Amino acid sequence: MKIVSVGAGNLAYHLLKALQNAGFELIQVYSRTEASAKELAERLNVPYTIDICSINCNASVYVIAVNDDAIDKISDSFISNKGLFIHTAGSVPMNVFKGKLKNYGVIYPLQTFSKLRSVNFANIPIFIEANTEENLQLLRTIADVISSKVFHASSEERKQLHLAAVFGCNFVNHLYNVSAQLAKQAGFDFSVLFPLILETANKVLVSGNPKEVQTGPAIRNDRIVMQKHLELLSRKPEWKEIYAVLSENIKRMKNEV
Amino acid sequence: MKIVSVGAGNLAYHLLKALQNAGFELIQVYSRTEASAKELAERLNVPYTIDICSINCNASVYVIAVNDDAIDKISDSFISNKGLFIHTAGSVPMNVFKGKLKNYGVIYPLQTFSKLRSVNFANIPIFIEANTEENLQLLRTIADVISSKVFHASSEERKQLHLAAVFGCNFVNHLYNVSAQLAKQAGFDFSVLFPLILETANKVLVSGNPKEVQTGPAIRNDRIVMQKHLELLSRKPEWKEIYAVLSENIKRMKNEV
Repeated sequence: MKIVSVGAGNLAYHLLKALQNAGFELIQVYSRTEASAKELAERLNVPYTIDICSINCNASVYVIAVNDDAIDKISDSFISNKGLFIHTAGSVPMNVFKGKLKNYGVIYPLQTFSKLRSVNFANIPIFIEANTEENLQLLRTIADVISSKVFHASSEERKQLHLAAVFGCNFVNHLYNVSAQLAKQAGFDFSVLFPLILETANKVLVSGNPKEVQTGPAIRNDRIVMQKHLELLSRKPEWKEIYAVLSENIKRMKNEV
Repeated sequence: MKIVSVGAGNLAYHLLKALQNAGFELIQVYSRTEASAKELAERLNVPYTIDICSINCNASVYVIAVNDDAIDKISDSFISNKGLFIHTAGSVPMNVFKGKLKNYGVIYPLQTFSKLRSVNFANIPIFIEANTEENLQLLRTIADVISSKVFHASSEERKQLHLAAVFGCNFVNHLYNVSAQLAKQAGFDFSVLFPLILETANKVLVSGNPKEVQTGPAIRNDRIVMQKHLELLSRKPEWKEIYAVLSENIKRMKNEV
């Protein structure tokens, strides 16, 4: 099965690499930025193009891994194509392709991808959706080869999963950032927090229930400690706001079923 | 060196277990709650008491691992004692003991402790403080045996580290909680987020720079996606607030040096 990559970012690299390793034939990489196209093409050892009209029309699958807001526009260019077009975005509905393409769908791997970190695709949950039962079967066949956790998700469900990922990944990383700066202000390297960060993640994975393993002043409603912390943050009103909002929500959720 | 544990919580268990393993002699456990005292005493194989007047006065070190607000009160009971008294609280200043005891200090391990999860103390950063140079030396000797990462920290610095831990552990765990519930609302098990949670933690540890590895709609200032997410959260105004506050802060910190 021949595949073309439209887009050359981190997700494109890791997904296409996994597909290549599984025996699929990547025949071309497209990106409007030559440096990106060239780099990805070299890493995956395939030809590239930066001319959208030169995209190979003999592929069975086109993986569209571009920025969210570019998906709509770029799909206009494929009107004459015959393959299955799949985008990879959490928050873009499948129907972005409706009326433009015949066969389309979505393949959304729930993971954060970086240029220099390798990932084991076999463990990554992949959420798929397609415009026909036949296309869904094809997509499932492809996804099953690279991951043992393939689920069907509607566009609405995928958007909600993407939102969950923003909380569990992007926002978590920002709290690491605030935490790192607070440690630094106390005169210590960020690395003093590493065992705590790792244990916090491992603990929730083992427990499977974040609410059950919640600790800290807010869940104990320890007003004295919280007051001290808010005072410490008096010169950083925006962090003070984060502290207050999260503490309030921890207390509130304690009492919810 | 003989040690008495005043308090019988998770931190007491793990710290005292590490001290026992390192060859220190734990001679007694005190807790005002009999069930806790008995359980810890059995796990560590030592006698216990629930009578504060029966605390053994022959120990060299008293580890006071009780709730923050109980430290002040309980230290009144030790006026006749001769040992070194050390509490384990992040946000309680060492001077809680001033005027009450002769030899005192603090030993603060920067980690989250659970009953059923074993921890490797050797990797846990330990922050110590004492009222005299001599007591600090003694405390350092003890701490060096159980951890390879022992630092001196003033009460102010320790409070700031505790605040960093609230962001990097307690608040992070709460975001896992929100994330889990959002996944569930979409019809999926929390476990679909596990690879993402683990990769987010591992990535920041390898990079050592959370700001550098920040991803997501806020850092890209992707207003369309953020707007969709806020709409999804319209029936959960408190999560919407968390989303707005954290996204705003991610955008702001992007432009700070």
